[in-house]
Order: sequence, then structure tokens, then C-alpha cells
Amino acid sequence: MSVVQVIPIGGVGEIGKNCTAIRQGDDIVVIDCGLTFPNEEMLGVDIVVPDFTYLIENKKHLRGIFLTHAHEDHVGGLPYLLPHVDCPVYATEFTHALIRNKLEEKLDVRSLKLKTFKPGDVLEAGALSVEPIRITHSIPDTCAMAVRTAHGIVLLSSDFKFDFTPVDGKLSNIARLGELGKEGVLLLLSDSTNVERPGWGPSEREVSAGLRKVFLESPGRVLLTTFASNIHRMQQVYEVAADTGRKVAVVGRRMEQNIETCAKMGYLDSPKGVAVRLDDLRHYQPHQIAILTTGSQGEPMSALVQMSKEEYSRLRIQPGDTLIYSARPIPGNEAAIWRTINRLFKQGARVVYESATPIHVSGHAYQEELKMMVNLTRPYYLAPVHGEPRHQYLYNQIVQDMGYPEQRLFTLQDGVPLCMDDTKAWFGDPVPCGRVLVDNSGTPGISDEVLRDRYHVAKDGLIVITVVIDPEKGELVGDPVLQARGFHGPDGTLDRAHDILWDALRALNREELRDVNKLRHDMTDLVRRFIHKRASLRPLVLPTIVEI
Amino acid sequence: MSVVQVIPIGGVGEIGKNCTAIRQGDDIVVIDCGLTFPNEEMLGVDIVVPDFTYLIENKKHLRGIFLTHAHEDHVGGLPYLLPHVDCPVYATEFTHALIRNKLEEKLDVRSLKLKTFKPGDVLEAGALSVEPIRITHSIPDTCAMAVRTAHGIVLLSSDFKFDFTPVDGKLSNIARLGELGKEGVLLLLSDSTNVERPGWGPSEREVSAGLRKVFLESPGRVLLTTFASNIHRMQQVYEVAADTGRKVAVVGRRMEQNIETCAKMGYLDSPKGVAVRLDDLRHYQPHQIAILTTGSQGEPMSALVQMSKEEYSRLRIQPGDTLIYSARPIPGNEAAIWRTINRLFKQGARVVYESATPIHVSGHAYQEELKMMVNLTRPYYLAPVHGEPRHQYLYNQIVQDMGYPEQRLFTLQDGVPLCMDDTKAWFGDPVPCGRVLVDNSGTPGISDEVLRDRYHVAKDGLIVITVVIDPEKGELVGDPVLQARGFHGPDGTLDRAHDILWDALRALNREELRDVNKLRHDMTDLVRRFIHKRASLRPLVLPTIVEI
Repeated sequence: MSVVQVIPIGGVGEIGKNCTAIRQGDDIVVIDCGLTFPNEEMLGVDIVVPDFTYLIENKKHLRGIFLTHAHEDHVGGLPYLLPHVDCPVYATEFTHALIRNKLEEKLDVRSLKLKTFKPGDVLEAGALSVEPIRITHSIPDTCAMAVRTAHGIVLLSSDFKFDFTPVDGKLSNIARLGELGKEGVLLLLSDSTNVERPGWGPSEREVSAGLRKVFLESPGRVLLTTFASNIHRMQQVYEVAADTGRKVAVVGRRMEQNIETCAKMGYLDSPKGVAVRLDDLRHYQPHQIAILTTGSQGEPMSALVQMSKEEYSRLRIQPGDTLIYSARPIPGNEAAIWRTINRLFKQGARVVYESATPIHVSGHAYQEELKMMVNLTRPYYLAPVHGEPRHQYLYNQIVQDMGYPEQRLFTLQDGVPLCMDDTKAWFGDPVPCGRVLVDNSGTPGISDEVLRDRYHVAKDGLIVITVVIDPEKGELVGDPVLQARGFHGPDGTLDRAHDILWDALRALNREELRDVNKLRHDMTDLVRRFIHKRASLRPLVLPTIVEI
Repeated sequence: MSVVQVIPIGGVGEIGKNCTAIRQGDDIVVIDCGLTFPNEEMLGVDIVVPDFTYLIENKKHLRGIFLTHAHEDHVGGLPYLLPHVDCPVYATEFTHALIRNKLEEKLDVRSLKLKTFKPGDVLEAGALSVEPIRITHSIPDTCAMAVRTAHGIVLLSSDFKFDFTPVDGKLSNIARLGELGKEGVLLLLSDSTNVERPGWGPSEREVSAGLRKVFLESPGRVLLTTFASNIHRMQQVYEVAADTGRKVAVVGRRMEQNIETCAKMGYLDSPKGVAVRLDDLRHYQPHQIAILTTGSQGEPMSALVQMSKEEYSRLRIQPGDTLIYSARPIPGNEAAIWRTINRLFKQGARVVYESATPIHVSGHAYQEELKMMVNLTRPYYLAPVHGEPRHQYLYNQIVQDMGYPEQRLFTLQDGVPLCMDDTKAWFGDPVPCGRVLVDNSGTPGISDEVLRDRYHVAKDGLIVITVVIDPEKGELVGDPVLQARGFHGPDGTLDRAHDILWDALRALNREELRDVNKLRHDMTDLVRRFIHKRASLRPLVLPTIVEI
């Protein structure tokens, strides 16, 4: 019987761009297709998506892409895969609705095979089948995925927590997870993001009490920033506002869009009369006002950041305003977030970012919840996903404490298949894999060379050398021109570089001047060395030789 | 009688570049002269120092620069001020010793007037006097500074905590602070960095227990990274290593330098036989080895980061190694630090970065300690320093809870003097003030224009246009050349830009081709607009017109 391969296309050894292929013979199912955000070294990179080469090369075997939930790190890569493959995309109605706006910006959605499922459906996919199972997370209608293979069930936990009082009342289907465990889970791929946190995470519902406290004690307007996809959080804001006599307006395009979509579908139920338009706020006193806003990650173009800079015409911060920071900083964004918060304080607002009663909780399982998932599903093999190497390490430690032997635990790597049959598991040969950097125009494929040049200019600036040559006569025409941009160094560095270059050029004979490639190389080298020696700087040196 | 002015040259509304001038008539004393680190938007900036214009313009009034302790954010600006002024620099012998190495890299130290003091000395400075008072912090021989003025004492807390079991046994002179309070403190400038933390901070001494636990339970080598100036921490590492049967070697230039200096001066006392050279480690088993290393902030050139990348020839990470992360991330460095930690896990090391028993404690006062300082010194006016706007806001809240009326609390701004006489306090006219960006060559004064150009290239790359013109004939010579570096966009963008430019140039008449300035502007504008329209990118466009 065919070997089962679990191939992480992205999302292991990292947090982001989740995408897992499960292959048995000629049938491949793909779970999720996410993006990740660039780190600070990836200059001018907008987003990062997985290298989909393996999926594209095997497109005739793809039986479907199955989405666990609508977060960007699980769906944001779709616009970069779908143009190259032809298989259906399965998701809940809610997930499809939320991602449709974004897909429409890049693709002709009518040409896509979007298919909806409900938790509990069993979706045939060649010799494989996929069963979505409802599980709680920080966005509605999240599903774990049970992929039935010839050797047992491969269970992907998706991002999850065990929340017994979810805001939408829809509980995790724990019983079904237990049944699958009894039937025989071959491999559990478990969320591990919060493995550093001991105990059991607080319920999303607990945020209500924290919000209520701040709403009541704030004399002026309350603003609240959170992720634009955090529907449960917004639901609670509407409820708390209704209870405390405030109206709610929304600023920020993506948040307005999501709220509209969710309200239409019945996923957001704002008490009658609470939701108002921003323009209507002038009819109310500050203590009757609450405002939902984007910008929780300090994004420069977001409503909140623009307000903090007094650059947002639709809404100005007033002394006496209170902002609730109801989110968590995505690593790398901390500095921008603190700058935003400080600017709000300087404008006379108070910012609540920590609180004895929680104003934010995580959507991911803590240690005891992770253990409960293992206990319920009793997998034979285990591998943490959605974690960096430190999370993978700690997860495997914790599971060993539960009695699992080390040889049944795997630390996966992107692109390296985990192969399983009825008797054993092993790592297969790597498939093409990596990250594809997408620029600000949406064009994927920024090269290392482009990044390196950007890095040099960002660090030490750039120097353009222009030299005109008459190749027939083998003579220089005029003297070289050096122009610098983004360059700063000791006074006179450029003048001196010019003189040295000029001297060197004049010493060349006709033949040497005609050898343009060598000349270009030598000029660059000369200027580069001189500037490094004099100023310890390494600007990008860009030579232009004009032959007339 | 003269008004007393307290003029923050740097260090309020921010954490970093601490420098405060206190002026009475024609006498100015300066407390500290620090630097700060660039944020991620300051591309290619090495360090940031205060704009010292006010001090330089008033250099004949400067009676002395008094250093509270040897941390970079209190002393790192000296190389950029001292060449322009001529006053003595007062510090403890220890502080002078620690900064001497750094000053020598940039200045002729023999020409400086370096004067030492001991806590308790009273240093005359014109009509003012300065009394350093011993206080505990994360570096030896830290002093608060009491500046006696005509209207009472201006007390600068310096960075402090009240540590009753300091590693060096040198307690804060609390009694003296109380005496000053009785005598009459006009203004307290208090550390406020940790005002968000309730309660009383743990003693540095508590770290010993945490370290001992990790040293004992680690089967292999133990590496520990901390700030190179954290002498107390290193002292504890030597002691714990001696107790647990390990030898200690050091990697990282600055750390080796500091340890050598401190050992010579008797500020670091390693038990006999514990300190060994790195090369000698081969004589010991892994469980007999401890290593102190730089790199706690993920600095690319540090020993730890190079080890994590397997690029450090003197020492390689081995499976079974344990790294203790005994520091705190400076905001903005988080991403680089986590990358380093993850790489160490991937090499098979375990990294301990959180622990039930502390492996790092802060050197700054928590809320109750801040209140104790107020209670001891009973100042009339109060202003938090060493804090961002959020810390200033919270500090003033906490002091109001102690019963201080709002009108005696001040939120200072860099460059705005706080003026005081016998009856009142008010803000005076701003003095020249700001930040000076120093580049990687050590040259201060990077302009906004340079940063803007770097930003554009870092984000979207650069395009160089070269056009050759014969001004006599008023003709183009050859066709325009477009070169791109660091540029990425939809295929064909550059070719199309070239064609459009070529068409536009050919349509120009002789007179238009001779107007080089207009031509340069129009070419840039044309290419810039086209690329933005086609690809939503804004590369730096750099035109060169060669006239032959």
C-alpha cells in the first residue's frame, strides 16, 4: 500500500505561511495556504509566501485546498498559488466570505472553484478524505482537519484553543476528536505557538469584563484597536458598549469591510441602535462614544497611526480619550506600536495596554490545552507546527513528559516529507521549498541580489560614477562625474574619491580605456576600496560608462 | 536672585541620550552625556546623540560634566561633545576606567580634564555645587546627584533601584537622601523606566539562585549572555561557576575588556582558578565549562550571533549546550534576538530565557521603590525622566496617588527649560535641541534628505537614467540608458519606461535639450510617474545628464 507523505510547504520552524500537503500515491490534499510578514532585514518586501513549486509541478494530483480558517497566515498565499493550479478550494461559508474581498483584488474569482463545507462533512479527495471538525479560535468557524489515509488519520489541529465559553457559543467538537482518537490517529500536527505558557488560557469571554471596566471608568471617548479579523472581540465591544451606554463607530477600511460582511451573514450581532456611522458621533457626548479602529500593529497607513500623528482627517484624538490596546504585538512590530502609543499619550489620551482584568487573550492553546489535545486524540506520531524551533523543542519536551517516547516525536522542516506506512515513519527526500518575497507592487520573486543592493544603500548610501568614453579614439571625454545619494561620511570623501578616480583614469592607455567591462570593474573597485579605507563605509557603487 | 533652569538636552519623553543642564546665572553644570540607539526607520544610523548646540554656545559657562554611571545612555555622547567644550568631566574612578577605552578610540584622552570623585564629595561648580550620593543600579558606583542651587536642591535620581543585597555589598546611601529631603529638595528628577511594574523589584542577588539552578541541571556546557557592562552579573557567574565546579571563559571583545579593567581595579573578584582562557577549555569536560558571551541584543557582529550562524571560528555550539539569556531585549531588537535563539535551538542547544527562579532582574526601580524615593526626599516639584510619554504619564499618576497636587508635577520635554525661583516654577523658552544621527563611519549629522533617499531605495529600489547631450548642437547623443538596482516590479516595467523616456526626449527641440535643469527634472518626473502608475512603486530616480 502507498506510503503517506506529510509535506510542510510552509509553517514549520516558523510562525506563518502555513501550508501542508498530504500525499498518498497520486492524490494530494493541501491544508491551508498562508502568507507571512517580512522581517526587518527584508527591505521593501510586502509579504512572504511559500515557494509553491512542488504543488504546481504536481498540480494534476491536487484534489483540493482545504482552509481551516480565514487568518492571513492560513489563506493569504492563495492569490499566488491559485493562478497556477486548477483544484477546488474548500472552506466554510464564513471563511470564503472573509477572503473573497481580498481574492477579488488580485484574481477573477468567478474562475475559481470555491466550495463550501460545514464542520462534520466528509469531503472525498481521491483515495483520501478530509473531515473538518469545529474547534475554537480567535475567528469564527475554525476547523481542525482529519485527513483519512490508508495508514490512519493525519489530524491537523489548526490554530486552536479549548474555549468553553466562546463568544459565538459554538463549542469545539471535543467528542469527535475523542472518537477519532479511538479510531486511530496516525499523526497529530499540533499548534505549538503558546507552548511557553503554562496552564490553561483564559476564555475570549473573559475579555468582556476587562472591557466593561475600562468603558465604565473612562470619562471620555473609548477607542479600541484590535486585529480586523477579530470578530469575537468586536462582538464584545458592541455588547459592552450597549451595556455601558455608548454608541460604536468603526474606522479603518478592512475592519469596516469585515464588520459589514459578518453582520450580513449573522456572525456579528450588534444590539439595536448601538452601531453608528462616524459622522453621527457629533450627536453624542464623549462618554457616550466608543470607536473600533485598525492599527493594532502600528501599520503606518492605518487609522490609529494616522490619528496618533494628527494626520487623520476623519477623526482627531482629544484629551480625555482612552485607547484600549486589545491585541498582541506581532514580533518585529513592537517599536512601531510603542511609538504610536507614546504619541497618543502626548496628545493627552490615556492608553490601556495592560490590565489586571484582561483586555486581550490569545487564540492559541496553552500547555494544558496542548496536552488535552494529545490526550483526546492519542496520536501514534506527533509533530508540532505553527512554531519556531524554540516552540518545537519545548512542545516535544512537554509531550515526552506525558510519556511519549522521543522516536515518535518529529521536528519537521519545511520541504522535508514525513513518510509513514503501517510500521514506521521516516524523513523522505526534500522537495523544492522556500520563501518567495513579494514586493510592494504585488510582484513575487524579489531576489537576494536586489535585497543585498537595498541593504547596502539603506546602510551607507550609493555612489553613481559616470564616465564618457570615445571608443574610436580610445579617449576619455570630460572628467568622471561622481554623484552620491543617501551617502554621509567625513567631509571631502567624495571629492577625494573623484580625484583618485580621475588620476587613475588618466593613467590608462587607449587599449585599457576600450576594455569597458574591465574598466567598469576597476572603477567600482577603486572607489569602493577608497571609501571603505577612509570612512569604513560600504556604499553601493554603480558605474556607468557611456560610449559615444 | 537668579532663576534656576533645568534644561533637558536629552533623555525626557524617551529612554536614552540622557543629558541634563542645570543653570543658575552664568553657571551651568551638566549631568550625564548619553547616546541612544536608532529606531528601525533610521536606516544606516549607528548611534544617536543629543544636539549639543546649547552647551557649545554656552561653553564658557560650563563648570563641569558630572557622570552618574558608565552606561552608554549616560556617557556615550561624550566623544561628540568634548571636542567642542573645555570643562572638566567628573566621575568615579570606576566610571572613568570603563569609559576610557571608548573615549580613546575617538579622542586624545590626554587633552581631557578627567576628574574623579567619591560618593559624598561636594564638588564646587561656580555658584552651584554637586554632591554625588551612592545608589544601587546594575553597574557599580552609580550616583544620584544633588545639585545645590540658590533655591534649593535639584536632585537627579540617576538610574536606580533600592537593592538591599547588592552583589558588591555597597548599599544606597538612603540616610543621606533623607537628610537632603529634610534640608529641602526643590525638584526631584526621577527615573521612571519601570513605573509600569507594580511592587518592589527583586535584588540582583536573587539571580544567583536562578543561575545556580540552571548550572546544576545542565548536562553540558553553559553559556551565558548579558550586557558587557553588567559587572555584578558576571561576578555572580564566577561565583556560581566556582560553586558548581565549572571554569569560566569569556568571548566578545567589549566583555573581555571590561572584565580585565574591573578585575584590575578590584571590582570583579573571580574565585581562584575559575577564570580560564578560551583555548584552555579543551582541557575540561562540557559539564565543567561556563562561557560568558556578548550578543544579548542580537548584534550581528557579536560572538553569540556568529556562533548561532556557525560563523565563529573560536567556538562552536554543540548539542547539549545550554545558553542562559540573562538580559532584557532593548525594544526594537526582539526579532533579531529570537532569530538568534531559534538558530541555537536548531543546532541542538537549549536556551533558557524564562525561568521560575529569575535569571535576569532589572536595574531600575519598580513602583514602590519610586514612591520610596519620593517619600525619602520629599521634593517640592517632581518630574519623571528616563521615560517615554507613557512612563511620564504613569509616574505622574502614581505620585498624585501619594497626594502630590498636579501643579507640582511636570512632564518635561527635551529642550524646554523648567525655570524655578523661590515662589514658582514655569516653562521657559525652548533652547536649540534635537537629535544628531551618527553614521557607521562615526560622522555625525546625517540629514533627513539622506534618510529619505535611503528609505526610498530600501523600499522600492533605484533607477539611474543617463542621457548624453551635445549642447552645442542641441542634440541627444545615443539613446538614454536606464539602470536599476534593488528594483523589482512587473516584468517589462523598465523597458517600457525606457521607451516612454526615449519618445519624450526625441520630441524635444534644441532649446529644450539645452535647458539641462528642466530636462533633469522632467525626465525624473516622467519615469517616476510611469513606474508609480504601472506598479505602485516609488523607487529613487537619479538622472545624470552628460554634456559633451
